Amino acid sequence: MTDSLPLRGVIAPTLTPFNDDLSIAEDLYISHAKRCLADGCVGLAPFGTTSEALSVGMDERMDMLEKLIASGVAADKLIPGTGLTNLPDTIRLTRHAVSLGCAGTLTLPPFYFKDVPDQGLYDHFRRLIEGVADDRLRMYLYHIPQVSGVGIPVPLVRRLHEDFPGTIVGVKDSSGVWENTAGLLGIEGLIVYPGSELPLIEALELGARGVISATANINAGGIAKVIKTFDGGDKAAAAKLHETVKKFRLTVQGYAPIPAQKRMLALASRDARWANVRPPLLPMSVADGQALADILAGEFGFRLAA
Amino acid sequence: MTDSLPLRGVIAPTLTPFNDDLSIAEDLYISHAKRCLADGCVGLAPFGTTSEALSVGMDERMDMLEKLIASGVAADKLIPGTGLTNLPDTIRLTRHAVSLGCAGTLTLPPFYFKDVPDQGLYDHFRRLIEGVADDRLRMYLYHIPQVSGVGIPVPLVRRLHEDFPGTIVGVKDSSGVWENTAGLLGIEGLIVYPGSELPLIEALELGARGVISATANINAGGIAKVIKTFDGGDKAAAAKLHETVKKFRLTVQGYAPIPAQKRMLALASRDARWANVRPPLLPMSVADGQALADILAGEFGFRLAA
Repeated sequence: MTDSLPLRGVIAPTLTPFNDDLSIAEDLYISHAKRCLADGCVGLAPFGTTSEALSVGMDERMDMLEKLIASGVAADKLIPGTGLTNLPDTIRLTRHAVSLGCAGTLTLPPFYFKDVPDQGLYDHFRRLIEGVADDRLRMYLYHIPQVSGVGIPVPLVRRLHEDFPGTIVGVKDSSGVWENTAGLLGIEGLIVYPGSELPLIEALELGARGVISATANINAGGIAKVIKTFDGGDKAAAAKLHETVKKFRLTVQGYAPIPAQKRMLALASRDARWANVRPPLLPMSVADGQALADILAGEFGFRLAA
Repeated sequence: MTDSLPLRGVIAPTLTPFNDDLSIAEDLYISHAKRCLADGCVGLAPFGTTSEALSVGMDERMDMLEKLIASGVAADKLIPGTGLTNLPDTIRLTRHAVSLGCAGTLTLPPFYFKDVPDQGLYDHFRRLIEGVADDRLRMYLYHIPQVSGVGIPVPLVRRLHEDFPGTIVGVKDSSGVWENTAGLLGIEGLIVYPGSELPLIEALELGARGVISATANINAGGIAKVIKTFDGGDKAAAAKLHETVKKFRLTVQGYAPIPAQKRMLALASRDARWANVRPPLLPMSVADGQALADILAGEFGFRLAA
């Protein structure tokens, strides 16, 4: 039954690797995306928070997305981030993703002004949909208030989904607040992806489609196995696998997760470019990275395929 | 003496008027900019927070800036906002402003990621300067943490000014925290504009160059007179004028200041387009606007030239 659902499973907000001059390392970008899919991801969310999307320019984002698809990654596995602070440029990125045949877009609310009225956010999304003006648009609202500074409250998600049922199809909830995720899972017909595997089993039991998680960049296989086991009906086995996956996540979460995962990939691939981040982030040191890698290898048998 | 300083006085972060389809109302934009200058502004800061800059697209910003200069407003009176969350697009906007001969740029730190290390912000500005690669660049750091979510601490401002003394020439402090403004005014050679006229006299006494204030959109004359009187040496008279200017500001601040000022301009100009805002902001109602206009007219004799 669940097999017939599109993008049922784990989705990686793919890390964006940079060359030493901080241009996008296109070779690493594409090989990493393909590895995530090979490791168990059912889809990718390029240019989410973990991707340092808001540190990447508009043209760079569109160019890299085109190259990713040209490299052979099917557009119907992609839910790229498109949300900026302003409507015209968000329309441009969203329309571009739709024109490429992407499965959907993951779209932040406008996040410069804080404490804005729900009606203002509603108007933004309404005008965004009108501006894109393409029936193929499938939008996932992106709720990550602790980073963006502007959330999308559950009642507003419900209203948007009810008013644009074929367009606002889902939500990624990265708040880490279970009550919020549970509230979203109560909205009829809404596709919900928690932004972390920590409440994965609980969310699946309430009907979550899967998970879009930062750690899927280095632990896609582990997370995928939890979902597969859950779908196979062995809930006790799924819960046991989930415990290990949670510990892995909590270990990585103890560090700045973007630089930490990039350093893990630098160490595993022996390509130092992987450790590069764009400001305002700072890279993780080799020493700190080696210490974390030792923990992940020792406790979880973490080893990344070359 | 002070007359020889460039842009000594009050600078308006000009409001951005929108047509009913929310495109920029270019006619109103230009006439308003010229009125601000005629009313006493020594310069303009197009595309600051009050301008809803982050609700305006990149191409729109560059296009409107070019049209403003083409309309006859001297580029050396302009300090446009250029800061976005990412380096490539911030470089593009900044380079564009420099190429037009603008007096400077008013540049936000990257504001998507929160709680970032000072070194990360430093690296961003260093790479921005390197990316613009133009000796004519004069950058004013834009500190407005309560909106952007990311501030530029005083020690970081000092370090940037010391390391790039001919380029990072100043700061706009919109924090509203006097201790912060006073700290900035202690940095040798730094040009400081508080973001509000509330501490105007206090700031002038410590050497502030002037003020970049939202309310300069509708009260430039009043604020200019305080500075002129202060510079003329009659501090008691300046302080008295300041009291009225402060009351005006506090009255407007009691409302959402961008929609409120736009509604004041709509009422004064009898052009309803002035009340339009882009989402996520909501316009001020006519009734609320009329009530505020009555207060401003009654208590301050507020009347806008047509």
